[in-house]
Amino acid sequence: MSRTRVVLIGAGFIADIHAECYHRFVPDAELVGVYSRSEAHARAFARKHGIARWFIDLEEALGQPDCDVADVCLPNHLHARVTIDAVKAGKHVIIEKPLCLTIEEADSMIVAGRAHNRKLMYAEELCFAPKYERVRQLVREGAVGSIYYMRQCEKHSGPHSDWFYDFDQSGGGALMDMGCHGFAWFRWMLGAEAKALSVYAQMQAGLIHGARTRCEENSLSIVEFDRGVVGIVENSWAKLGGMEDRIEVCGTGGVVYADLFMGNSALTYSEKGYGYAMEKAGPTQGWTFTNFEEVFNQGYPHELKHFIECVRNDRTPVTTAEDGRTVLEMLNAAYYSARTGQKVSLPFRPTVSKPIDLWLGSANASSSIRL
Amino acid sequence: MSRTRVVLIGAGFIADIHAECYHRFVPDAELVGVYSRSEAHARAFARKHGIARWFIDLEEALGQPDCDVADVCLPNHLHARVTIDAVKAGKHVIIEKPLCLTIEEADSMIVAGRAHNRKLMYAEELCFAPKYERVRQLVREGAVGSIYYMRQCEKHSGPHSDWFYDFDQSGGGALMDMGCHGFAWFRWMLGAEAKALSVYAQMQAGLIHGARTRCEENSLSIVEFDRGVVGIVENSWAKLGGMEDRIEVCGTGGVVYADLFMGNSALTYSEKGYGYAMEKAGPTQGWTFTNFEEVFNQGYPHELKHFIECVRNDRTPVTTAEDGRTVLEMLNAAYYSARTGQKVSLPFRPTVSKPIDLWLGSANASSSIRL
Amino acid sequence: MSRTRVVLIGAGFIADIHAECYHRFVPDAELVGVYSRSEAHARAFARKHGIARWFIDLEEALGQPDCDVADVCLPNHLHARVTIDAVKAGKHVIIEKPLCLTIEEADSMIVAGRAHNRKLMYAEELCFAPKYERVRQLVREGAVGSIYYMRQCEKHSGPHSDWFYDFDQSGGGALMDMGCHGFAWFRWMLGAEAKALSVYAQMQAGLIHGARTRCEENSLSIVEFDRGVVGIVENSWAKLGGMEDRIEVCGTGGVVYADLFMGNSALTYSEKGYGYAMEKAGPTQGWTFTNFEEVFNQGYPHELKHFIECVRNDRTPVTTAEDGRTVLEMLNAAYYSARTGQKVSLPFRPTVSKPIDLWLGSANASSSIRL
Amino acid sequence: MSRTRVVLIGAGFIADIHAECYHRFVPDAELVGVYSRSEAHARAFARKHGIARWFIDLEEALGQPDCDVADVCLPNHLHARVTIDAVKAGKHVIIEKPLCLTIEEADSMIVAGRAHNRKLMYAEELCFAPKYERVRQLVREGAVGSIYYMRQCEKHSGPHSDWFYDFDQSGGGALMDMGCHGFAWFRWMLGAEAKALSVYAQMQAGLIHGARTRCEENSLSIVEFDRGVVGIVENSWAKLGGMEDRIEVCGTGGVVYADLFMGNSALTYSEKGYGYAMEKAGPTQGWTFTNFEEVFNQGYPHELKHFIECVRNDRTPVTTAEDGRTVLEMLNAAYYSARTGQKVSLPFRPTVSKPIDLWLGSANASSSIRL
Repeated sequence: MSRTRVVLIGAGFIADIHAECYHRFVPDAELVGVYSRSEAHARAFARKHGIARWFIDLEEALGQPDCDVADVCLPNHLHARVTIDAVKAGKHVIIEKPLCLTIEEADSMIVAGRAHNRKLMYAEELCFAPKYERVRQLVREGAVGSIYYMRQCEKHSGPHSDWFYDFDQSGGGALMDMGCHGFAWFRWMLGAEAKALSVYAQMQAGLIHGARTRCEENSLSIVEFDRGVVGIVENSWAKLGGMEDRIEVCGTGGVVYADLFMGNSALTYSEKGYGYAMEKAGPTQGWTFTNFEEVFNQGYPHELKHFIECVRNDRTPVTTAEDGRTVLEMLNAAYYSARTGQKVSLPFRPTVSKPIDLWLGSANASSSIRL
Repeated sequence: MSRTRVVLIGAGFIADIHAECYHRFVPDAELVGVYSRSEAHARAFARKHGIARWFIDLEEALGQPDCDVADVCLPNHLHARVTIDAVKAGKHVIIEKPLCLTIEEADSMIVAGRAHNRKLMYAEELCFAPKYERVRQLVREGAVGSIYYMRQCEKHSGPHSDWFYDFDQSGGGALMDMGCHGFAWFRWMLGAEAKALSVYAQMQAGLIHGARTRCEENSLSIVEFDRGVVGIVENSWAKLGGMEDRIEVCGTGGVVYADLFMGNSALTYSEKGYGYAMEKAGPTQGWTFTNFEEVFNQGYPHELKHFIECVRNDRTPVTTAEDGRTVLEMLNAAYYSARTGQKVSLPFRPTVSKPIDLWLGSANASSSIRL
Repeated sequence: MSRTRVVLIGAGFIADIHAECYHRFVPDAELVGVYSRSEAHARAFARKHGIARWFIDLEEALGQPDCDVADVCLPNHLHARVTIDAVKAGKHVIIEKPLCLTIEEADSMIVAGRAHNRKLMYAEELCFAPKYERVRQLVREGAVGSIYYMRQCEKHSGPHSDWFYDFDQSGGGALMDMGCHGFAWFRWMLGAEAKALSVYAQMQAGLIHGARTRCEENSLSIVEFDRGVVGIVENSWAKLGGMEDRIEVCGTGGVVYADLFMGNSALTYSEKGYGYAMEKAGPTQGWTFTNFEEVFNQGYPHELKHFIECVRNDRTPVTTAEDGRTVLEMLNAAYYSARTGQKVSLPFRPTVSKPIDLWLGSANASSSIRL
Repeated sequence: MSRTRVVLIGAGFIADIHAECYHRFVPDAELVGVYSRSEAHARAFARKHGIARWFIDLEEALGQPDCDVADVCLPNHLHARVTIDAVKAGKHVIIEKPLCLTIEEADSMIVAGRAHNRKLMYAEELCFAPKYERVRQLVREGAVGSIYYMRQCEKHSGPHSDWFYDFDQSGGGALMDMGCHGFAWFRWMLGAEAKALSVYAQMQAGLIHGARTRCEENSLSIVEFDRGVVGIVENSWAKLGGMEDRIEVCGTGGVVYADLFMGNSALTYSEKGYGYAMEKAGPTQGWTFTNFEEVFNQGYPHELKHFIECVRNDRTPVTTAEDGRTVLEMLNAAYYSARTGQKVSLPFRPTVSKPIDLWLGSANASSSIRL
């Protein structure tokens, strides 16, 4: 069976990670092209990763006849349109988180996928991160009894690219960027049968990024699930000292703690400093928590390998566009809760052009909000 | 200058800790008596700690003429009455957390203290725990810039004594028992000028203690302070594996993490097990986090020494009955928020006979609630 | 280019790990056969790993014409003979640690490899463990200045298979089993130009395995390198609580600590226990350090992938049979030092039928020792 | 009973720690004087600690009639002479580690103590450090079965005062300064009945202190005890990043790890840095391990309180001058071993003017060595 051919749509930070993963860990896939709107980026990326073709025309990129999969690594506001174009061009599509900016977009993506019989995978790598996946397995084995409480946090000092700061492109700040991880991971831990009942959230802005953004820089969200389970997600663009990604699972028969970055690291003291310690770690003089195989430990290879196997064996991905849509609904509820100071019940289907409008309100919104 | 004479009112878990502290770390104090309603307890306690007199009559205990201080270590619902009796008997009083069950009680205590010119100290040992106090100092030095987020959690597998399970005696469950620590500590970290604006909370019951209690066994509270600071407190009576007490302080210039129990411990693997690893740690076979000088590390000696010095030098304690009342108000707001699903603004002055009524509602309340 | 075909010689603990690695991480290799002297083992192993052919005749296994590589996972005393047979049969060979039992064997293996122009790789996975490899890279970047001291320890509660207990098959105990890791890793850290000058060692026997073995159960070895560098290796078959594998690198400009097992783990408290926490961890009730991707984190995939690439691209492995021979010489010196209480200078070329004889002495030796 | 009156002989780093301890934790003692050869130091020290009298004349300091205890905190080469003068002046004496420079000196001190019926305590604070003491207790409870292996390390970036660099004052480098801790602690762990049989050691010099010293900057020592127990001590003046003090106890039924500095700390990330993180920690920008109650956690208060109680109640200290002499003998053996590359059997009674001569040899020795 020949290799599954993949075109990368995007040439930024996350596209780079995906390219490394296909190359090292997904032998059944072959990167056959890369798209960027910048010719220089496209060309450099293709050369760096040994990809034969590069494109600055999206239609052309998606139109390659000998290609099976489009891997969408673009800014959030482009996810829906590009995904729909890709399935129309006959591609199976894997879409980086968050799925898109609105529920309407999500619905259109799902409809398009079904109409063209193409698979859509929502790329939630936390559901594949090997340490967290090990935790999930032991919970399934009954190690901690029944889960009643979970905590997940992902925090760092700010986004990789400037487009995140612009809520018209990103849809929101730290919560939009990373809260999606926690929400998806809770659902993965609890299993398909779990139902989120409500979301409460608190946002903080203007912490360390000044005029660069009006997005929230720190957020705290509480999700209630049926069967009495509570989950809390903490996200930040204002946490210095490198990436933090931790989980905690409390059950009636025990507890598990896992830390994805500092918890895997070597501990280094360096008078002079050195090249790189950890994603967004800052200077490396003094003590640092040195990471290794960061991409593997975050589950990207496992995620991409899974999608390629789904495509090759006609199976449904463990995280689908429907999951992405549910997470988006929870993000919407969180933003709205931050405005009202009330727990927001699910389902919650406001009409709004981007999630953060629900917090900042109509005066700031680029469109009217209908709840 | 002769030693300051103290009578211990109570002979349970916390009284035992206080007695050890006076003996080892507060040479300026002398324990001259102990009260328990049980003669056996009073007698045994006095013998264990070398205390000359024991009492089963409270009036007699408080009436000792040659005694300066009453240290109140009784169930929560007795705090107010005994404190007032004690100041009437001319004692300075240190009262274990939480201060009492109602704002009205708190007011009466404060009024009585002033009327008789006696000092009241609210015994919040977390404001004295040396690791946390070191953190506070470095924050004051500017180590982490401006605080915008704090987290404190205290969790274990359930209370020391059965009276905690009975909300008529305790006033509430895990939140009442331990949330008071987090609320007080936030205020201590931010300084006298900080003002709590609102509280949101989530409660969970029926986790591992079954019919023994109707109190919340797990809780999560969010406090908003002015200047945009947010604090989160996690409390549990359902967390197995021993005590957990952690803090996290996020500022615009850095972050600090501290862990009071596991974070100080020796790490032991024992095939056969041994006597004691940590408060509420359970069996000691396999891996355990062995604690040492637990009482010192929690700040009890520093707290008691501070009060004795205040009494001797006529100074105001760093945590007063007023602080205890403010914390109680926050506890009230948290319970009410858990019932309404809304952020509760402060000041919040409901008339209720105990905080948990605000969550369980009037059907369960032993009295009507007036907001 | 077609896949490189590999026959596994051995079907025990380590063969199982290798099979998993080829399957998941080395797409350029294909397992075409497995040998075990036990038909049941061979058959079961082939079925488990989807290998087409199994053998109980070694000659037949090595004689497959369409196979490029033999991967030797047999007890130590068989390494030399099987390796030589394999190269004669035209295979490139990767040999599990330690290389063999005597310097003479090592020389014969090397001579045979050269005579038949076949590659020999010494399978020292610690030189590929990603956390340790990251440490090596940062040392190369100058993060800690000049190394002057290193520590490596590998400890657990005893071997996987009974043959390790029999020194005629294993050549020695904890040191022979695991000291080879530390010795090889020191050399890898310091680079090809480093020269070991002397070895001192201390052995302890009869700790927890009773009559099952006369081998050392705990050992401590000190290696002096030129340029004044000192390394210490600690090994144990008597350390309860699961695998321990740690390193420490001290330089004139800093220090690095890394822990391969506990240092990557999730921390679990389980009342009931669960299936598996970590290699040799014992019961899983109470606190455990839960590992994940253990095989990956130990570097096995990287090691095997490297060898397959060497074979395909005609390059020299980073750990050769010559490295294995040097490590064996250091092991010999360590055993002899334990007997004499003196530092043993290198080169050290005793004639002895197995390393442990140099410690236990001629009375216990199955052959005479000639220094 | 009135307070026990103490004169501090010395006004440097360790004297400062002792003064803080007496003041905060030893209410039964009263500091009545301090001696320094520098008037400025003596005067400033007395003022800082509220001590009534200061001396620059040693005889005068020791001659105070109303004083019971001399606490000797001087450079090593002065310990013997001053101790003997102090007992002659009728003082009980506590002597900082190491006891003195030669076995002859140790004998004279012991003889003098007996002749004048004065108590001599060897101030080994590690035998009082509460975390390590907790470990000792659990070992006594049988938590880890029979000890067969121990490790202790104490490392930092170099001494507090310049006199340590001068071996005529210090007697040796990192080993002399800190190896004494490990040797004493092993004996304390194993109990009075344990007998050290041999010592092996390795020294390294010229690492980071350049021409400032000819002393060893890094050392590694192995002690064999009867009953087959092995202990290893690692010491350094060349380890950057702050104090390291760790222990490891391996027994036939388990293992314990404890870390006195990083293992108790709060973890801080500070962009700007702050005042002080830990003894010898260097700059505080970036990540630091913030210590608290360092003096308490090292056991100084417990040690001094113990001695004062011994004096008041006429009991024998747990660490006597005889213990100090045994440790000194082990230090001598270590230095000699480093020169010969051989394990040195105990008892070992060379005649030498200072321990390091046994390593550097007679050409460097300020006197001849007689073994």
